[in-house]
Amino acid sequence: MPSASLIKEFEQLVGKENVFSSEADRQSYAYDAAVLKPMIPSLVVRPTEVEQLGQVVKRCYEEGIPMTVRGSGTNLTGGTIPDCSDTIVILTTGLNKILEINTEDLYATVQPGVITAKFAAAVAAKGLFYPPDPGSMSVSTIGGNVAESSGGLRGLKYGTTKDYVMGMEVFANTGDLVKTGSRTVKCATGYNIAPLLVGSEGTLAVTSKVTLKLIPPPKASKAMMALFKDMDGASQAVAGIIAAHVVPCTLEFLDHASINYIEDYVKIGLPRDAGAMLLIEVDGHPAQVEDEAVIVEKVLRDNSATEIVVARDAVEKSRIWEARRVAIPALARCRPTLMLEDATVPRSKIPAMIKALDEIAARHNVTIATFGHAGDGNLHPSILCDRRDKEEFSRVERAVDDLFNAALELGGTLSGEHGIGTAKIKWLEQETSHGTIMFSRRLRKAFDPKGLFNPSKIVGFGD
Amino acid sequence: MPSASLIKEFEQLVGKENVFSSEADRQSYAYDAAVLKPMIPSLVVRPTEVEQLGQVVKRCYEEGIPMTVRGSGTNLTGGTIPDCSDTIVILTTGLNKILEINTEDLYATVQPGVITAKFAAAVAAKGLFYPPDPGSMSVSTIGGNVAESSGGLRGLKYGTTKDYVMGMEVFANTGDLVKTGSRTVKCATGYNIAPLLVGSEGTLAVTSKVTLKLIPPPKASKAMMALFKDMDGASQAVAGIIAAHVVPCTLEFLDHASINYIEDYVKIGLPRDAGAMLLIEVDGHPAQVEDEAVIVEKVLRDNSATEIVVARDAVEKSRIWEARRVAIPALARCRPTLMLEDATVPRSKIPAMIKALDEIAARHNVTIATFGHAGDGNLHPSILCDRRDKEEFSRVERAVDDLFNAALELGGTLSGEHGIGTAKIKWLEQETSHGTIMFSRRLRKAFDPKGLFNPSKIVGFGD
Repeated sequence: MPSASLIKEFEQLVGKENVFSSEADRQSYAYDAAVLKPMIPSLVVRPTEVEQLGQVVKRCYEEGIPMTVRGSGTNLTGGTIPDCSDTIVILTTGLNKILEINTEDLYATVQPGVITAKFAAAVAAKGLFYPPDPGSMSVSTIGGNVAESSGGLRGLKYGTTKDYVMGMEVFANTGDLVKTGSRTVKCATGYNIAPLLVGSEGTLAVTSKVTLKLIPPPKASKAMMALFKDMDGASQAVAGIIAAHVVPCTLEFLDHASINYIEDYVKIGLPRDAGAMLLIEVDGHPAQVEDEAVIVEKVLRDNSATEIVVARDAVEKSRIWEARRVAIPALARCRPTLMLEDATVPRSKIPAMIKALDEIAARHNVTIATFGHAGDGNLHPSILCDRRDKEEFSRVERAVDDLFNAALELGGTLSGEHGIGTAKIKWLEQETSHGTIMFSRRLRKAFDPKGLFNPSKIVGFGD
Repeated sequence: MPSASLIKEFEQLVGKENVFSSEADRQSYAYDAAVLKPMIPSLVVRPTEVEQLGQVVKRCYEEGIPMTVRGSGTNLTGGTIPDCSDTIVILTTGLNKILEINTEDLYATVQPGVITAKFAAAVAAKGLFYPPDPGSMSVSTIGGNVAESSGGLRGLKYGTTKDYVMGMEVFANTGDLVKTGSRTVKCATGYNIAPLLVGSEGTLAVTSKVTLKLIPPPKASKAMMALFKDMDGASQAVAGIIAAHVVPCTLEFLDHASINYIEDYVKIGLPRDAGAMLLIEVDGHPAQVEDEAVIVEKVLRDNSATEIVVARDAVEKSRIWEARRVAIPALARCRPTLMLEDATVPRSKIPAMIKALDEIAARHNVTIATFGHAGDGNLHPSILCDRRDKEEFSRVERAVDDLFNAALELGGTLSGEHGIGTAKIKWLEQETSHGTIMFSRRLRKAFDPKGLFNPSKIVGFGD
């Protein structure tokens, strides 16, 4: 617990109503969406002005207190779980202003605590488009999206959060304000620090402002659903779509197991014997959408789709997307614990990865349902289990080991969009190199010599 | 001069034919395309294998010798001018292999010395598209483009080099190989180091391999030219095009002075009384191109274009682009020195910036011709002068001071695409903050504790 005088200082700085010290309050900030052990922080401080944020960072640093900065805590790898019982959680939800949406120069400036979906809606109301759409966007914050380098369904065509951050303002450990990037599309001024901060999981600096790129919205879109006997056919169809130079805005798949869990949950008449389902949406100019839909339909047919449905209107489109929308709750309700992974492979390796997942499930006798972003190779193998069952969970852990090994052997990556946190640290060196870990630690030490910014995350803080 | 034994060591490592120690040879690597004082390096080493590159870096670091890594040396801010007479230039032109162009997963892997235009052509031959098109692409290298965060004409719609770097392998000061990024579209694995290295001007690590994103090429395009009485009309047209949600692939302008210098040079019948010229190209699906061309033409007419030409075929298109293509040689031939700047402002501020440039030219009695990328606010105010004339050049330097002040006052940035090098260091703190400079120096020291990687560039190496 911080000293009474420091608590008083924070109360004077941010107001008593924004300092939480009771155990019940602190308990709420002990965990995030990862399947990991919670840790109760010593205090929670919620600045409502940017200057307060800088001051809290500076004071914690001076006092040698570890900090975990947190928006809505929806991340899936433990990035917002406090490191130790001394940790102070800095809550950004009070910094929730959209400062500017500039329709002439196509950018917006926001505070870190703005909710992603609210921001996207505010942008849409001005006739523009902010494409990143992480699964948790209805509650996640922009600051959290930036810290975690969040992805989403539109990554293939539109890129992810990292492709929309034009500039940032952050507080360094010293409380100094650091500006990086610009409001202009082009910027080659000084070190390109903003994208380094994207995905740095609160380990380098504390975000106070983000400038985001906006684009004109597509004028039309069309959604399609296709069923396949097996995942191979679906994967070949995905390859065929890309080979035909169609880049859909979303290109999702559900495997046989996912289809069945979803049907159990929502009973919308999905065929239980289907081996795989693809959900495809193309967008852009109306004529392009029409042409691309025709090409996609042909590719689906040529790859032996057993059923193809093209949505004729918004209602049908919504119906098509229903299966994907409910995937996570449909899986989460089956067993006490859902381990949602995000191993990512080059898209041509999806069939090999799916095959490896089947073998892994059989080898360790665990249940894996897989869905995700077929277009960009970003799979969500989801293990349904009970964490409290030690014997089962040790099998799950071995399966996860094998799963990441398989992704790396196929030229893939540990994480497409969930980050490393503490959950994936042990595989990081295998994907990169010992040199990369050392290089990363030097980087981190430069920004945080005392090791107080979320210290155990990503590469840890050792030598 | 390095010791005879070190030179011998390098000769054994890379072959005698790839170590250049004569003064005549070294002289060739003393300058780049910036208007700055040359500096002859002590030695030039040209590795032809990646392992040799790592070994050269390691040995120079161990010996405490400053290194400047150089591709074709086309950069405009002194990034490849050696820091001192002890500097060893490491030439990447021997590492010029395109390792892979993957048409299934839409990426390519290249060595740093590959020529940009050759790479773009190799990609096109496989039916794909690498959009970044810096002005020097016929001679510049991918490694140089990455080090300088190079832009080009297609930035507005397609982004610049930084938007296409998916992953990199680099050698750290220790000679250790560092891997960052992935071959997958999505990657949230470890620190996002690759984009930090983009634009780091050889000050953090030495690039050995780059993975670049590729996209399907647009199916159609259409080019247009419009003339205006003054720059205000042209700028309003630019704003109107964006407001109509058309994002052209290129949207260039030439001011009155540029038009006249170009006409002097190529005599293609440009109207000498025109206040400004816009060159616009839209691309994408054929129907979209047709629609967008109609919208653009209407916007041009509504903003009092005095003449509009729409290219009907490839020959007419090439004729339209001729004026822009020859802009730099047309200006460069007029006076001994051409100072080509790249101040960038939010595009809505272009009229204000052009007005400021006119006032600055009058105030300091210097000749400024301005052209550039109107779509993304990236102007190229070009000062025609004679560097040897001390009195004139001191007026030029004052004009450049005022020019950057004006860009920053309008919410712009010092550099859209040329970088900082040594040429723009003195304005960097003004754009960012003292905290940013300190933060950047800490960053650099973490990667290069002895200050041997191109030490005087970007933020220098002091405390």
